[in-house]
Amino acid sequence: MQTIVIAGVGLIGGSLGLALRKAGFKGRILGISSPATIDKAIERGAIDEGVSLTEAAQAADVFYLAQPISVILDTIDRIASLVRPECLVTDAGSTKARIVEHAAKLPLFLGGHPMAGKEARGIAAADPDLFADRPYILTPPEGRLMESPAVSDFVQWLRRCGTVPVLLSPSKHDFTVSWTSHLPQLASTALARSLSGQLTLDQIVSASGPGLKDATRLALSPWSVWRDIVQTNTEFIEHALTVYIDTLTEIRDNLQTPRTGEDFAVAADVALGIRVGPQKE
Amino acid sequence: MQTIVIAGVGLIGGSLGLALRKAGFKGRILGISSPATIDKAIERGAIDEGVSLTEAAQAADVFYLAQPISVILDTIDRIASLVRPECLVTDAGSTKARIVEHAAKLPLFLGGHPMAGKEARGIAAADPDLFADRPYILTPPEGRLMESPAVSDFVQWLRRCGTVPVLLSPSKHDFTVSWTSHLPQLASTALARSLSGQLTLDQIVSASGPGLKDATRLALSPWSVWRDIVQTNTEFIEHALTVYIDTLTEIRDNLQTPRTGEDFAVAADVALGIRVGPQKE
Repeated sequence: MQTIVIAGVGLIGGSLGLALRKAGFKGRILGISSPATIDKAIERGAIDEGVSLTEAAQAADVFYLAQPISVILDTIDRIASLVRPECLVTDAGSTKARIVEHAAKLPLFLGGHPMAGKEARGIAAADPDLFADRPYILTPPEGRLMESPAVSDFVQWLRRCGTVPVLLSPSKHDFTVSWTSHLPQLASTALARSLSGQLTLDQIVSASGPGLKDATRLALSPWSVWRDIVQTNTEFIEHALTVYIDTLTEIRDNLQTPRTGEDFAVAADVALGIRVGPQKE
Repeated sequence: MQTIVIAGVGLIGGSLGLALRKAGFKGRILGISSPATIDKAIERGAIDEGVSLTEAAQAADVFYLAQPISVILDTIDRIASLVRPECLVTDAGSTKARIVEHAAKLPLFLGGHPMAGKEARGIAAADPDLFADRPYILTPPEGRLMESPAVSDFVQWLRRCGTVPVLLSPSKHDFTVSWTSHLPQLASTALARSLSGQLTLDQIVSASGPGLKDATRLALSPWSVWRDIVQTNTEFIEHALTVYIDTLTEIRDNLQTPRTGEDFAVAADVALGIRVGPQKE
């Protein structure tokens, strides 16, 4: 990998550029974004210069799409006839099945999804350590990495950036994140939405502790980020919501019985496991 | 207030003792708890010495019940015939209507609920700043503070400890916290409970980011803390869960429509308001 193009130099794209530099990448990092973002990204050292899509397609050994899902789909269309046959196109979109299917028109594509993020967005929030020790899901065909040198080189750089690559099929990815990411988001949004009809903000603030902040943090995320995710993973999300609603209904109907105590015990085990990781015997 | 007895010297009771000392309280602080906890509480400076219930009732100007709700109800029974008529009994229980009703047998009772807490429990986690800048709900009869000198003296000490007293009726308190505390707890518990049936811990950990940790933090809370709360506020909690389930159902049935975008916008406003406080014109 001599030249990487990052399309969308926001939190994820900018952080990748910074992480590559920190990991010792000496090649060129080109960016595609608005002029204002390109200026900031150069200033921060995340990219070397801004380029057009056509220039990018000619230069890229790796073409990294760090855009909203609908823009990724559009970029794939626009670069399909432009990229060199040996160029690896890869992405950081939050759902995979739709993107991977759409990318069949590209010579060489590897779907990806870094399990990293923070509340703040944009190049200003980019962080060379954003990916450190975080899982990075890759969705190669048949769930094993392709044997192309471009792929193994790119994955090697992901490891040098501190990520922990995890292989999943696109469908298994979308199922898994419907539980680990999309359901928690909608649960938080629905919680904040429900509160709004019942209490004034004064009443909420004067009768709440740190727990409510934790529970509503995800609800800060805007629909502009989630619309594409929800629309490209609708079935799995509908299913996860149904299971969640059933669990809540059982708890509501068993508040006075030991069954809710059992639910608390199982839930506390899961919550602890998420923090300490799976404990092997 | 010359002598305060703290029954239950855990996170809340221990923090009150430390906060009173930090605020300059020069009187005696007596504790009721297990011998091991009493030793630790003395060592930490949260109390001066441990006493029996009978000794406490004879000495107390203020009798502060920082126990689980069921133990508070029991302690009220046991001290009703022992406390001096001018002694103010007050509590820190998480629900109020049941406790206030039960405390009618006491000469002078003021219900309370500090809106403070943290994940860790017990005297080891006690913190003199736990209450600083946090609301402290008081539920006097008819929603206004009684004119007793003992009450105004105690409330003055709460203010010196950094709390922001808020007056609510017991019923209004229980309604409000069913939304701001009990529903977030059950939403988090139900989320972690739902995940357990779908994915292994390995799968969860390898495909989740910081958002899932936020969303499942409350699920770490044990049933031993929540059983009494749920059983003394069942009706309001059932109602809040029903509204939450309805909101989730509407979101599930509208994933592809602009309605969910509107829900995100309202929810983000609420989540932001919880952080920055109500904005006056």
